[in-house]
Amino acid sequence: MNQNRINRVLEGMKTRQLTQLFLADWKSIWYLTGYSCEPYERMYGLYLSSSGRIVFVLNRLFMDPGDEFEKIWYTDTDDGPKLLSELIDPEKPLGIDKIWPARFLIPLMGYAPKATPVLASDIVDDCRARKDEEEILLMKEASRVNDVVNHRARDFIHEGATEKEVADYIDKQYRAEGSESNAFTTIVSFGPNAADPHHEPDDTVLREGDCVLIDMGCRKNRYCSDMTRTFFYKTVSDEQEKVYSIVKDANASAEKALRPGVKLSDIDGIARKIITDAGYGPYFTHRLGHFIGQDDHELGDVSSASEIIAEEGMIFSIEPGIYLPGKFGVRIEDLVLITKDGVEVLNHESKELTVLQ
Amino acid sequence: MNQNRINRVLEGMKTRQLTQLFLADWKSIWYLTGYSCEPYERMYGLYLSSSGRIVFVLNRLFMDPGDEFEKIWYTDTDDGPKLLSELIDPEKPLGIDKIWPARFLIPLMGYAPKATPVLASDIVDDCRARKDEEEILLMKEASRVNDVVNHRARDFIHEGATEKEVADYIDKQYRAEGSESNAFTTIVSFGPNAADPHHEPDDTVLREGDCVLIDMGCRKNRYCSDMTRTFFYKTVSDEQEKVYSIVKDANASAEKALRPGVKLSDIDGIARKIITDAGYGPYFTHRLGHFIGQDDHELGDVSSASEIIAEEGMIFSIEPGIYLPGKFGVRIEDLVLITKDGVEVLNHESKELTVLQ
Repeated sequence: MNQNRINRVLEGMKTRQLTQLFLADWKSIWYLTGYSCEPYERMYGLYLSSSGRIVFVLNRLFMDPGDEFEKIWYTDTDDGPKLLSELIDPEKPLGIDKIWPARFLIPLMGYAPKATPVLASDIVDDCRARKDEEEILLMKEASRVNDVVNHRARDFIHEGATEKEVADYIDKQYRAEGSESNAFTTIVSFGPNAADPHHEPDDTVLREGDCVLIDMGCRKNRYCSDMTRTFFYKTVSDEQEKVYSIVKDANASAEKALRPGVKLSDIDGIARKIITDAGYGPYFTHRLGHFIGQDDHELGDVSSASEIIAEEGMIFSIEPGIYLPGKFGVRIEDLVLITKDGVEVLNHESKELTVLQ
Repeated sequence: MNQNRINRVLEGMKTRQLTQLFLADWKSIWYLTGYSCEPYERMYGLYLSSSGRIVFVLNRLFMDPGDEFEKIWYTDTDDGPKLLSELIDPEKPLGIDKIWPARFLIPLMGYAPKATPVLASDIVDDCRARKDEEEILLMKEASRVNDVVNHRARDFIHEGATEKEVADYIDKQYRAEGSESNAFTTIVSFGPNAADPHHEPDDTVLREGDCVLIDMGCRKNRYCSDMTRTFFYKTVSDEQEKVYSIVKDANASAEKALRPGVKLSDIDGIARKIITDAGYGPYFTHRLGHFIGQDDHELGDVSSASEIIAEEGMIFSIEPGIYLPGKFGVRIEDLVLITKDGVEVLNHESKELTVLQ
């Protein structure tokens, strides 16, 4: 039980005038209680009332969180949403976790029609977005491993390599460095494949003149890293060089402008303006960045629509990209930490134009 | 586009008197359209109306499914649920996918308060539960690989082995056999760890007298396998032998009773009665089995509450277990296919009591 973090959440409920909240994200629940359980498709959650009462809702198959907690147990043959409807105050709005699936929410609304569901897990997500000291150390360690492995991957790239081979190599290096898993499926994209920002590594063989886009992240001690570097193989065309230079400028300018108090929408604007002014606006098809922590994508983004003001402890990605269908793609991504009076970039691998031989 | 499968879904909508359905499960969407996209946390779906109209709802970041489809595109700065509310009939109930998260459903209900959400993805899941010929071949191949790798894992177990080491070995063998990934995190549990049905492999070292529970599955060509075998290391105690024999009997008796027309709740009952009569009822803490296909757990289960009648083409697991906290656990699991007049067990690895030396 982490009473400091729970108090921050209760404070957030008060601000929102919410008397009850049902969390379902097992990472949020771990964050508050120290108890970890992957429920797969089964119902699982933590009920918080503004009085400070905290109740686990658990399947009999899950491990016991211990005697310090109030618990409601159900079995695979029980009706979970019905049990939950008997726990909550049926006359008051109920804060709901953004990840809670319709298969539980719709039946619960049937059992407790007056407990209007309100999206409210952002109360916890807002706490998770501002990392505490312990979390910052873990985030730095995961990014340190990512730098080390990115460098090895760059050295590993060779004549005849396939995307899958490079991705497998990266995944193995993560394990060798003590990370428990990938943070997401490693992206290795050669040439035109890199024009799809979410391309999955396949048997494409590296060819002279290809760009090599590597978007990678590991999870170590629960916390994630995420970075992208784009290289070129043997030769680089004028167009590739030009696009690379624009993306690099967008990445550096956005990072340079970060400090507490700036609007993240303005940061997105800085990067987007550089790309748009260079004539590639339509080919930068996504937001500039996303928050990250226990999940590779957490609530909060760096986009033109973001209403977030940078605060100390926030960690997110800065990842401008230009994607030219049928040709190539370039993305350069770091994780950044907002410090007391500025920013610390958590990735240290070079972003200079690199032509691998 | 698989018109046969789509027609089965439209038929199901008719039976349910539902004029519109929004699917969000990307595997269901692939199943119907052949288009595959992992949307991560972004909104993604396929809208079906009873008139046969089919519309993709896509983020600009996703690949284009092609000209044959009607599409609505949105960007990261658009309000996805609002766009969807303009596509649907706002006066009619809307079928909702069970996996659709609250972060989209609650805003949609705000924009279209009269389009009452109804859980309805089971219409597609019911189709997916009864595999067609092509799917049966793929399921058999994934289970063939699982048999091969399970046998190798059994041979690999050795003095000083840790759970993680055995799990890593299994995962590597999957890749060597051409499977694209695990179907789920491989479970390897030694001794008392096996009393937690979902234990995650750690650095526990194998000791004489331990049970070795291995629950494993791979995904090959999109389709999953899933099996469990429990061995003993060096020696086996009288209690272990007794428990093993009960679980083995429960597994075999349940499988033997399967054929089209039987209630799956009765099958659960057969296994449960054997375990209960032997005095271990409270230690069999989960349902007997689950459906499987593109997902390792799909809609439909083999439990006392199941209302499913076995039909040709259904594939699910039969996995009785006994878990004795602080001591050991035994589970024996196969996948089974309901055939025209009986059952085919898809796993062929021995279930005889095995004491590894």
